[in-house]
Parts: sequence; C-alpha cells; structure tokens
Amino acid sequence: MSLKIVVIGGGSSYTPEIIEGIIRRHDSLPVTDIVLVDVENGKDKLQVVGELSKRMILKSGKPINLTWTLDRKQALIGADFVSTQIRVGGLEARAKDERIPLSHGFIGQETNGAGGIFKAFRTIPVMMEMAEDIHHICPEAWMINFTNPAGIITETLLKHSAHDKVIGVCNIPFNMRHSTAEILDVSPEEVEIEFIGINHFVFGKKVTVNGLDYTEEVLNKLKQGLDYSPANIVNLGWSSTFIDATKLLPNPYHQYYFQTKEVLAKDIKAFNENGTRAENVQELEKSLFELYQNPNLNDKPKELEERGGAFYSDVACSLMNSIYNNKKDVQTVNTFNNGAIPDLPYDAVIETNCIISKNGAKPISVGPLPSVIKGVVYQMKAFEELVIKAGLSGNYNDAYNAMIMNPLVSDEKGSKILLDELLKAHKDYLPQFEEETG
Amino acid sequence: MSLKIVVIGGGSSYTPEIIEGIIRRHDSLPVTDIVLVDVENGKDKLQVVGELSKRMILKSGKPINLTWTLDRKQALIGADFVSTQIRVGGLEARAKDERIPLSHGFIGQETNGAGGIFKAFRTIPVMMEMAEDIHHICPEAWMINFTNPAGIITETLLKHSAHDKVIGVCNIPFNMRHSTAEILDVSPEEVEIEFIGINHFVFGKKVTVNGLDYTEEVLNKLKQGLDYSPANIVNLGWSSTFIDATKLLPNPYHQYYFQTKEVLAKDIKAFNENGTRAENVQELEKSLFELYQNPNLNDKPKELEERGGAFYSDVACSLMNSIYNNKKDVQTVNTFNNGAIPDLPYDAVIETNCIISKNGAKPISVGPLPSVIKGVVYQMKAFEELVIKAGLSGNYNDAYNAMIMNPLVSDEKGSKILLDELLKAHKDYLPQFEEETG
Amino acid sequence: MSLKIVVIGGGSSYTPEIIEGIIRRHDSLPVTDIVLVDVENGKDKLQVVGELSKRMILKSGKPINLTWTLDRKQALIGADFVSTQIRVGGLEARAKDERIPLSHGFIGQETNGAGGIFKAFRTIPVMMEMAEDIHHICPEAWMINFTNPAGIITETLLKHSAHDKVIGVCNIPFNMRHSTAEILDVSPEEVEIEFIGINHFVFGKKVTVNGLDYTEEVLNKLKQGLDYSPANIVNLGWSSTFIDATKLLPNPYHQYYFQTKEVLAKDIKAFNENGTRAENVQELEKSLFELYQNPNLNDKPKELEERGGAFYSDVACSLMNSIYNNKKDVQTVNTFNNGAIPDLPYDAVIETNCIISKNGAKPISVGPLPSVIKGVVYQMKAFEELVIKAGLSGNYNDAYNAMIMNPLVSDEKGSKILLDELLKAHKDYLPQFEEETG
Amino acid sequence: MSLKIVVIGGGSSYTPEIIEGIIRRHDSLPVTDIVLVDVENGKDKLQVVGELSKRMILKSGKPINLTWTLDRKQALIGADFVSTQIRVGGLEARAKDERIPLSHGFIGQETNGAGGIFKAFRTIPVMMEMAEDIHHICPEAWMINFTNPAGIITETLLKHSAHDKVIGVCNIPFNMRHSTAEILDVSPEEVEIEFIGINHFVFGKKVTVNGLDYTEEVLNKLKQGLDYSPANIVNLGWSSTFIDATKLLPNPYHQYYFQTKEVLAKDIKAFNENGTRAENVQELEKSLFELYQNPNLNDKPKELEERGGAFYSDVACSLMNSIYNNKKDVQTVNTFNNGAIPDLPYDAVIETNCIISKNGAKPISVGPLPSVIKGVVYQMKAFEELVIKAGLSGNYNDAYNAMIMNPLVSDEKGSKILLDELLKAHKDYLPQFEEETG
Repeated sequence: MSLKIVVIGGGSSYTPEIIEGIIRRHDSLPVTDIVLVDVENGKDKLQVVGELSKRMILKSGKPINLTWTLDRKQALIGADFVSTQIRVGGLEARAKDERIPLSHGFIGQETNGAGGIFKAFRTIPVMMEMAEDIHHICPEAWMINFTNPAGIITETLLKHSAHDKVIGVCNIPFNMRHSTAEILDVSPEEVEIEFIGINHFVFGKKVTVNGLDYTEEVLNKLKQGLDYSPANIVNLGWSSTFIDATKLLPNPYHQYYFQTKEVLAKDIKAFNENGTRAENVQELEKSLFELYQNPNLNDKPKELEERGGAFYSDVACSLMNSIYNNKKDVQTVNTFNNGAIPDLPYDAVIETNCIISKNGAKPISVGPLPSVIKGVVYQMKAFEELVIKAGLSGNYNDAYNAMIMNPLVSDEKGSKILLDELLKAHKDYLPQFEEETG
Repeated sequence: MSLKIVVIGGGSSYTPEIIEGIIRRHDSLPVTDIVLVDVENGKDKLQVVGELSKRMILKSGKPINLTWTLDRKQALIGADFVSTQIRVGGLEARAKDERIPLSHGFIGQETNGAGGIFKAFRTIPVMMEMAEDIHHICPEAWMINFTNPAGIITETLLKHSAHDKVIGVCNIPFNMRHSTAEILDVSPEEVEIEFIGINHFVFGKKVTVNGLDYTEEVLNKLKQGLDYSPANIVNLGWSSTFIDATKLLPNPYHQYYFQTKEVLAKDIKAFNENGTRAENVQELEKSLFELYQNPNLNDKPKELEERGGAFYSDVACSLMNSIYNNKKDVQTVNTFNNGAIPDLPYDAVIETNCIISKNGAKPISVGPLPSVIKGVVYQMKAFEELVIKAGLSGNYNDAYNAMIMNPLVSDEKGSKILLDELLKAHKDYLPQFEEETG
Repeated sequence: MSLKIVVIGGGSSYTPEIIEGIIRRHDSLPVTDIVLVDVENGKDKLQVVGELSKRMILKSGKPINLTWTLDRKQALIGADFVSTQIRVGGLEARAKDERIPLSHGFIGQETNGAGGIFKAFRTIPVMMEMAEDIHHICPEAWMINFTNPAGIITETLLKHSAHDKVIGVCNIPFNMRHSTAEILDVSPEEVEIEFIGINHFVFGKKVTVNGLDYTEEVLNKLKQGLDYSPANIVNLGWSSTFIDATKLLPNPYHQYYFQTKEVLAKDIKAFNENGTRAENVQELEKSLFELYQNPNLNDKPKELEERGGAFYSDVACSLMNSIYNNKKDVQTVNTFNNGAIPDLPYDAVIETNCIISKNGAKPISVGPLPSVIKGVVYQMKAFEELVIKAGLSGNYNDAYNAMIMNPLVSDEKGSKILLDELLKAHKDYLPQFEEETG
Repeated sequence: MSLKIVVIGGGSSYTPEIIEGIIRRHDSLPVTDIVLVDVENGKDKLQVVGELSKRMILKSGKPINLTWTLDRKQALIGADFVSTQIRVGGLEARAKDERIPLSHGFIGQETNGAGGIFKAFRTIPVMMEMAEDIHHICPEAWMINFTNPAGIITETLLKHSAHDKVIGVCNIPFNMRHSTAEILDVSPEEVEIEFIGINHFVFGKKVTVNGLDYTEEVLNKLKQGLDYSPANIVNLGWSSTFIDATKLLPNPYHQYYFQTKEVLAKDIKAFNENGTRAENVQELEKSLFELYQNPNLNDKPKELEERGGAFYSDVACSLMNSIYNNKKDVQTVNTFNNGAIPDLPYDAVIETNCIISKNGAKPISVGPLPSVIKGVVYQMKAFEELVIKAGLSGNYNDAYNAMIMNPLVSDEKGSKILLDELLKAHKDYLPQFEEETG
C-alpha cells in the first residue's frame, strides 16, 4: 500500500523541515513516496533541496522513495497529500511589497497591508489552477496549504475552487502554544489555547493546562514582555493597559494594527539602514543553500529555524498524521467557521481549534467574539472577502475597495497611489489584471 | 485525594449499572466515595439497592466508600459529580401520563406527547431546586442528568438555574451506535454517527467506520428492518420509501410522529389488554427488586437490560471518565447548540457530538438541518421552549400553548381536555400550578 | 401614453371584479389597454367574460381598449401589469385534490394538505413558463399573482424564475381587516393589522385603529365567534382558551390545523352528502356564466361575492394603483421576508405589511414570531420549501418528503398512498413527474 | 385638548428654528403648550431665547402658550413630545474634545474620534436620568433626541433606559436629500434616498426621483464635487475612483475616516491659525444672541443657518407631525435595526428609512450592507457598543477599549494618553468615572 506526499514549492529552503517531520513520524505515517515539485525558475534550488532530502532519508533508513520534478501534473498522480508552500514572484516580489508601501509612509509587510494584498493577488490565480489540477488528477488528496496569506488562500480555494479537501495551516498558533508552554514551564502537549479570530489576526481567549485555567497567569507574563513573535516580525511588547483592558492574548501581527506608528517608524528606519526584510531573507537563504549543498550534510540544519516560518512543516506533518490515522485529536487550522464563531459568516475561513479525522477538520464551538475585538475581527474578515473578490476578478475597482478598506491603508488617495504602483511593479504575476496593467 | 460521586435517585433499579460502570473504570476513574440519595418514598428501595451496591464493591476489591441517605444536602458536600436519575411521582404518575391521553385517543407515552409534557412539568421544579443546592453546596460539581425528558430538563437547568455545569445524557445515541456496529459487524468504538437534532428527536446523518463512509450500507439495513429500539418502545420498522426519501437514520421515538395512527392503534390495543407500560414496568421492577434482595447477588443482574434505559449509566460513567481525565474524546450528549446547527437557536440544547474535557462538553460543528427535517426539528425545539416556559411559570395559558403546539396533540379542544385532566391527576406534584389545581 | 394590463386566466368568473376595480380607479390609474388571456380549454368562458367586460367598460364611458385572446405571448407585448389567476386542470382537478385525501381520512382541501401540494405541483411548471415569457417579452412588467397556493407560487417565481418583479396577493388579510373594521364599527381604512406569518397561515398580531391599540377588543370579539372566513371554508369559531393563550388573530385556514378532527368530520359528512366543494363551485360557476351571458348585464353581478375569492381583484387593483402612482402606502402582500421576521429565512416569501411604491413592495419590520407560533410557522415555511423543490424537480422522493412533512398528512404510509394516487390522477398536468407517472 | 412640547436645552441658539417649525405646521400639529427647559448655567440664554420665541408666536397669531423654566421635572408634566438638544459642558467642553486629540496628532472633532467618545461619556449619564424622569412623569411622551452623538445616545436610551419611546434624529440624511434634490433640480419631496448605515456613518445606496432610479446621475455629480456638507465640517470632495469603486453616496463625516491625513493636516492648520471650531462657534453664538436680544426681531434670523445643525429642528417637527397624525409616511431616523440590515445586530440602532405612525418608527427592509462597507460599518457599530458600555460603567478598561477600537485612534499608547488627558479635562462632567478621575 502506498502513501504519497507531493510538496509543491519543494525547492523552498523549508523543505528539509518537512522531510525531517515525515521521517520522524514514519512509524505512524508510513509514507512511501515523496515528490518535490517546483517551477522552472526554482530548478537549481529544487536540485539542491532534493539531494539534501535524499541524504536525510538515506541516513534515516526509512523506505521512502523521493524524487523531484518540474512536471506538476505528473507528480500529482496518486497523491494522498499535497502540501503547498509557494511564493509567486519569489523574494524579489516580496521586496516590492515591502518597499513600495514603506516609501509612501504605509506599513510594508509580507502578509499585511498593501503588500499582503498583492501577495494574495499574485498567489490566487496560481493556487486556483493548482486546486483544479488536484481536483482532476488526485481528487481524494488533501491539500495542506501553508502558502501565505494562508487564511485568504484557504478561503479562496474552499469557496471558489472545485476541490474541497483543503486545510490551511500557520505556525502562529503553534508558536503561541509553545511559547506559552515555555513560560509556564510545562510541555506544549499539556497546553491548550482557545483561539478566536482569523489567520494572522487570531487571539488567544483562554489558556488551559491539563484542563485547568491558566489564562490569568499567561496574561500577567505578557504584561512582562513575553515574546512569542516569529523571527520575521518585530516585537515591541504589549502594555499592561492593553492586556488588562482586552484580556486577550494578541498575536505578533497585531502590532501592525495597534502599534502602527511605532512599527512604521522602526520599519522605515530598518529599511533605510538595511533594505527590506525580503532582501535580508535573500541573504539568509543564500547562506542556507550554501549549507544545503554540502554533500556531507544529511540533517535539517539548525540555521533554518532563524527564519520566521519555523515549525510550519511540523504543523503540516502533524495534521497529515491525524488525518491518515483518523486520530480525532484537536489541532488549530484554517477552515470554514460553520458556526463556531457565530458573529462571523458561516462560510468564512477562520483559524480555530478543530477535531482532525479522516474526514478533515471540524471546528469546535468557540462562541461569540469578545466585545472588544468583535468589530475589528469582523472588519478584517470583510476586508479579506474584498481581497478574494478582486484577486479572482482582476477588476480595478474591486482592488481599490480592498485597498481602501484595509485598516493599514484606509486612505482615499493613498489607496490609488499604492494600487497603481503595485499593479505596475507586479504586472508579470497578475494575469487577471491584464486589462489594468497592459 | 478524593473523588466523590453522588447518585440522586439512588434507589432506582438502574443503580447497579452505574455501580458496575464505576467499578469497571476504577483504574482511570479512581472514585473514593459514592453516596446514593433518594426521597422518603423510596427509602426501602434505596436500602435494597444500597446493600446490593455494597456487595458489588466488596466483590470488586476497589477501595470505594459507599453510603446511602435521604439527606440530599448533606450528601452533596464535596461532590465532584452528581448523577440525577429521578422520576417525580414514580411509576404511578407515569401510568397516568400514559392512560389519560390514550383514553382520549392521543398518544400516551412517558416522554412524548401530553404525557411527556406533564413529566416535564412535574420534574422541572424538583430539578431546579436540586441545581440550586448543587450550585451552593458543591459549585464545582458536574451534574450529569439522565432524568427525562432529558433534553428539556437540561435546557431548563442550563438556561434558568444558577448552576451551569450540567450535561444531559440519553441512551438513544449509544444504542443507535451499538446497533449500527452490530449490523456492520464491527466494534462500537470504530463507529461514529454524526447526530443531528434534539433529544428523542435526533437523527443520524452520516455513519463512518474508522473514518470511512458507511451511511449507505446502514440505510440499506434499515430498509430491511434493523431494530435499534430500546425495550420500552415499539418497533414497527421503516419503509424503503421513507428511508430513500429522507436519507437519514430515524430514532425509535420518530415512530410516534410519523407512524402515529399505527402506533396509537397498537398502544391502545396493548393498553386494553395489559394496562399501561408503566404498570408492566412496575411488575418488572418488583421482580428486579426481589432479585436485588438476594444477599448472594453481588453483580448487576442480566435482567436489568430488559428495561428501556439500559446503557444509560454506561453513558454517564464514560462521560465522567472523560471529564475527569481531560480526555478530549468525542461523545454524544445534550448541551448548548452554540452554532453547531445554525438553524436552531444558539442557546438551544441539542443532542450532539461533543469534545469532552475537564471543561465539559463542546459541540463539534454539524451543519444545517437537512431540508426534509428542518421544519419539524425546529418545531419540536420551539415546542420544548413552550414546555419549559410553562413548567417554570405554572401559568395555564402557557401550558395550553405547549399542549396545542405538540404535534401529537395539536387540537384546540383536545388540548384543553388533556390539560385539565392531567393537571388534576398530578396536582400533588405540580406546586407551580397551584392556582390552577387548587 | 399607454398603460396596459394583461389578465392571465381572463376567462375566470372573477374577471368582472377586476374590470370593475379598474373602472372605479380610472382617474388615478388611467388604464388604456386590457387583454384577457386564457387557454384553449377556456375559450368559451373567455368569450362570455370578454363580452361582459366590454359592456361594463362601455357603460363606464372610460377610454379603455379591451380585447381577448388565446395567444399569451402576443398579449404580453407592451404589458405594464400582468395579473395571474389560473387554475391548472380546472375544477375537475380540484375535485380530485379534495376527494382523494378525504377518501383516505385526510383533510382534502384546495390549498392545504395533500390537495394543496398537488395544486402547487400542477401550477409551478405553468407559472415558471409564464414568468419566463414575461421576462423576455415585457421585462418591466409587474406580475401580480393571485394564483393559489399564492405564497408557494410567489416564492417559486421570486427564487427560481428570471423575472423578479413578482408580488403575490391574497384576500385573507383584506377580509380580516374588513371584518375587523365591521365589528369595531369603523371604516376599513382606519384599521391596520400587523400580520405575521405566511400565506394562508398568517396571524394578526396587533390591531390598531388610527394608531390606537384595539387588539384586546378584537380578541374579545373573536371569543364571541366573530366570523371572517371567506365563503369557501368552514367556520367553527375559536374557543376562549385558544384566544386567551395565543393572544393572536388566527385566520380561517388555521381551523384545518388546530381543529383537524372536527373539520375532517364535517368535510367528510359534507362530501358524502353533497360531493366535493369543487363540484359545488362548478354549479355556482355555471349559474354565474348564465348570468354573464345576459347581453343586458353590464355590471359585476352581486352573486360573484358568494365565492371565496371575493375581493382578490380589489386587492390586486389597489396594488397596481400604488405601484403606478408611487404611493408609498401600506398594503399586505406576499414578498421576500428580508429580515422583517428574523426567525424566518431571509429569502422566504411571507405575507406582510409592505410599503408599496414604483419599486414594488418593501416589508416593514415585524419582529420575531411570538413564541407560541414560532415552531409551527417555521415548519410550514420549511414544508413549503419542500413543495417547491419537488414541484420543480419532479422527483418522487422530494414529493414524498413534502407530503410526509405536511402537518395534515405526516404519516409514513399514508404519504405514499396519497402521493401515488394523486400522481396518477393528475398525470396530464404533471410534466415534471413524467418519469413517475409515465 | 392639549398638545404639549417640552424642549430640553431650550436655551440653545437653535430653538427659534423649532419654534418656527411648530408655527409653520400649526394647522396639522395644533400645539397648545411649549416649555423651554435649560440648566442654571444657561439661564440667561434661556431668557433671551424664550422672549424671542414668544415674539415669534405672537407674530404668528397661533394660540400657543410658551413658557420657560429651569425645573425640568415640573416641565415634563403632561408632555406629549420632549425634544432634547443638550450639550453637556457647553462649547468649552467641546473645545477640549477638539484641542486635546489635535495636540497629539489625532483627529479632534465634536462627534468623531476621541472627542466624540468623550462627548458620549459626558452625555450618557444626563440623558439616562432624563429618560428616567420622562418614564415616570410622562410615560406616553415621545422623546425626540437630537443630542449628539445621536446614534449612540439613542441606542443607549433604547437599550438601557426604562423609556422606550425614543427616536433619534440627525440633519445629515435631510441635507443629503436636499442637496441631491438641488443638483437634480427637483423638489426634495420627490427625492428618496435609500440610506444604509449608522448615524454619522450612513451611506446613500440608491436615489430615486418619483420612484425612478437616479443613482448613477447623482454619483456622477459627486465625482464633480457636489457638496452636501453642513457648515461645521470640511469638504474635500471625493475622487472619481472612490465613487466608481464604492458606488455609494458617502456623507461628509466619512472624510474623517477615508481622508484622515488630509483632514488632519487641514484641521491642525486651522486650529493653529484660528483655534478650535468650538471657539469659532462661540463667536458665532455670541453674535446670534446679540441678534436675538433685539426686541424687534420676531423671526428666525437667517444667520442661524450658518451653523452646522441647520434643519435639525425641521426634521424633529416633521417627525412629531407624522406621529401625531398617524401619517405612515417615510422619514429617516435613528431606531432599532430590527432586521432591516441583516448584517448588523437586530437591536443595533441604525439610521434608516422608517414608516412613521402613532406607534413610532418602523424600519423598512434595506438589505445586506454592500460588500465594500460591510466590515467598516459593522466595526463602527461594534465600537459604538464599546462606547455605550464604558459610558454606563465608568470603567477605565472599558473606556480604553472604546478608544483603541476607534479607527481614528487605534493606537495602543495613544489611546492611553488621550484617555488619561480627556478624563482629567472633563472630570466635572463624568460622575460615572469618579473613581478614575478622583
């Protein structure tokens, strides 16, 4: 019996992590085949990562057949799981998403604000096509998406593609749980956080350790500056006032929304001094790939964890494991709300605790949004709907509406300036906006 | 460390089952104290059951301290779990609930129709008082209610009492799962049924075995007459047409609603020949208690399973076990909807699959009611709200509204006749209706 | 400038009423053209009605050009309003709708129970085709539907046809308002009833006279037997208990649901003695048409009011007048709920007070269903959805679901018997069920 | 028969407008008594306005008895309508609401942003007390509130006071309708705008003239700079892009939200040059009162219209007229949503077209929020709920939550700075925050 995993974006520097995760779980998740897939542009990286992965498997002694290819359709034949971790336009495009807004005095970030909108616009057509392929070639395969903006992409696919076996993952809830465990000095398995909200805008509402309530303790630690930010975003900490008033665990991305001025000042300074975060990551990646090429390396190198995406793959492997084994355990993923948060649309994709079984992810009832965040979370979800609409339609007015309704833009004239400039900068990756970008 | 369980209605003939369940799970659920509580009227039975229970524990060798008392408040001190299995007015009252409607040509049944309404009316004041006691004496205790009508009682307590740690249980979902396992020739643990609806009006929507869909197979078996009725209700079977059209697993109580004429004919015939079901149960109980008195008996006697309530206690023990051990497994219980079925009120109590942890039961998203049952399930829930309103208010008009809106009554004049006659017959147990019953 | 009204089912005996209504309002509603349309089968009646109508117009001296035709498409060209008052299969079909259920011990009625379901099944395909024609030939025309079951037909067209300018009308709210005015001894214009519910299952919630609350007074009159039934249905009156408990004004059709046994007994007796109501109406119609043929008759004859549908046309004319003149007055019609009753689906068609303007009917907020009727009204609406689904699909299982979920049937075996017999009896008018009736 | 109107805040310079409105409508609204009420602090103004009002009535020849008093409770006896137009803390307090936020780089405005929050905080306790008085002294009286922030105050009273006959009014919808009429060169009576949203954040969705759709024409005019701002706020105009993308008529206050940077720059410049708007208004008022004191003046002086509130009183008079005469006409007021906009809470107060009758205002169905504004309107409403909660509780954390969730603040540290400074500045008018302000 075969168990085949296809990794789209297989040339990513993160891939060794997923390979390691698969090897580690091989007793319960007996993978027989892995195919790494990438695009022409990523051919060289794919080769390097493929060879490193083979060495890792060889060392593990597991009977896994790993190959790599540029032929996605061929690769998908017989797949049981397809993990997707792509970056349309590469780090060059990300650099523009960061630079252009910053240069006009707006937050310039990979998945938030104007940059995040364009990351979605570039990614939506590619992912829609991929979902279509999966639906036709391996309709029973589960698509585990960790391509960002993960919530928006997952909602796009679940609502608009033919394939409905799609689950979105993010490392933020994982990190929040692990950091919380660390500060409480317990193991992550003992900690459960009741999450409420949407991807990159999720809050922790209640922390329990073995079923006992430790929310108060964690909030107190947060007031003392507990840091659970991934490497790719700033950490300014949260004031006692904010924590006392909201009584919620914010996630690191909330700094962009509630500490906008300071983050902006810090980011502009960093940009002026060191260029965009994308450019720094390019450097980091370059050195990672130098490591990967070492024919004696047959392990995931520790340096990988310095990137923001650490644990993403661990989350994905854990998810595949529970689906495969019909485990019915609780994991935090992105899927349809289905009434778990009654204030949000029934068919909104939210980031929430779910029961994971062979039938996918079913949300566990969460309850209404706390009054303090009710409005802002609803608005962020409504904004995401505008992004999806524009990302699919390629309509200029739709795109403008998404831009002006983003709380990090929200400016009649600035919206137009950013929109026009970004449309031009990314035009090679925006086929749907062809009419606009010429 | 102590773990104390209080069994209200401890003199019930079902109690040996719960004792057996506790003994069997003692390794994971290390109960230290059990107190059986009953009312003056049930003193003798309590003595018999108490002694039998002691013999069972002695035989098991488990270090459990079991006592019995008529002093409920005293018993509740330090309780961790309180299971409630009472019958206000005893089987004599039940006989009236069955006889009076039947004598006017309406369904006369313990938990359905006019009889079920009055069972609720008698039970609501008693259970409200009990919840109040629990809330003051042992506020951290979980109240596991299997007093019928379980859905209505659970909703009454969750909405209107101060105590909010209340979970309702019923053996119908358990029986449906076990019968389904039997006909598929697998173990019950491998079967999961997605339930949708409310207590005694719940349907099975989807059957999976180890995560694979077997709904079609089970529906086909149903067409061939699969019987998963408990002993206390008729089984007329379901036609192919009904199963093909609804594509749902009905539960045995649905016969009262969709085969009314035939059930009524059968019940009237049985009543004329053998008296009410209550009277038959009295006989059965009598012989059970004769068995129980045998000082050599130190096991739950097999004869107990002939009563309809078999497995009720198993369901309750399993629930206590998962709460105590923060198991996060899936069980079917009665609790707040919380959006699991978006067509029903958010704060309606439904019978649904939940994650069971130290924090109680959280429903897993189910989805909208299938169109065929949407109306009737909604109506049954609205009817239950009318029963609760009247059961609390003791207002004649409220009671009339509950009666006329019950689909098994639904008759302008008949509602008044039944209401007046039942109010008179049960007046000793209806303090809230004092003004009406004089 | 022209103003053209097309009357589909123009050969109906009701047509003189609509003609009279148009003549009476000619100053404010300056109709220039009326075309009466009917089918081949109704050719003779159409001729008689057409000639009488011409005489009525001639007498009035109004410059209205009236013609009649069997060519519906031709007639629709340039229409501003299309009123529809058809009866597919004629009174012969209605006789079957009444006879077949009665013969099996179920309510047999024109628009309720099994008969009403089949009236819907016969009518839906014809009305869908008509809406399609209107949409293509005169897309700006308002379709004023008084074909029964008016609520179901209106919902079918609004949800499933391309034409969205459809408003349903019924004389029940009109009659309730007029009867109420009569017993309060005020003019109907002074009375407003807040209606809540759906066509033929609507209740009056509040009665105001010139803005002052008279609900109590009217309920007291109802307890004394106030009769506002149209001629075509029984009136058994309502008990004080029912009125006191519900605090609502029922409509005459509610007798079928809450006085089922008595109505059934009465109807079966009447049927055995005098045949079906349809057959009586045939007699009545025959004598009406004898009157109509009198070349000296140039008025609507008084005898017309004896039929149940009296005032239907008045309601329709009043509606056309308010649309034409952008009056923004309040009228009771059938249209999309749109939140007026939050317990019912947003896109359910309800019978409700609306503001009538050139843009059609907009419901005025009503509020939640009173708790006593919440369940039953919701169920009736859910039942109607099942009828529409089956009426469009022609699927046997869908039809069975509609039948068993009708509160006047609600019987596993009886549903099949009625369904099979009625499918056979009406097969010439059920093209969508061809496969079943073959 | 008497008809008595009590004007709370009767010493306002706007009062002559309401007097004029009453005189003008005297034939249909036969007012017999007017009492102007004000507080000790406004005694002199009250005298001046009272005398002017008497002269106006004398000139009109209407038999209206007008008096003025500082004794509010006495004044309320026998009232039929109570109009409220107060400003707690006067223009001095408003100056602080403007100055303090501006000095920290935030929008400083009377009813928006941090200033608007504090206007609500000062006003809520006073209005709650007033509603309590009305409820006890003249429970049948309609309270017509045009005290700002009108939407928030109306929601506070409708949800939290005992008096439920409260309707909120604002001149923005009136102005939008009149300006629209002007640019279309028709009379305002012919124009209807379908409004969607909440007070000061309402949009126009559709414009009809005599029932015909003119939305496109009006949007085109807006792109050319149509100005319907009242005198008290800036008008920067809207770009074609914004209008094309949203397809909605914004109201002037939307500039604060979508043109924040420019408005802020302009306001800071104006502030530096001329002080706050409040200070300018003080000048304006001073000169108005000089005019009012002229014993020969017996008309509303034209100069009054220069203030932003023009037509407020006209709106109020028109409303009283329709209530008194049970007119059932359409007016735009602030009242419970009741499902008119299904995306907003059922019990949110919205600004919407209503049917006005003796029974108050009933919203006409509007439909879902257009996708572009769905999120932002929902958030503004959720923000208002936070303001109400804090305004009632006087809790610091509640107030912080309102502050940080206001889109014009939305800053972790800035929220605290503004909150602390404004609490201190207004402490005399914030009894509920006593604990915070010492």
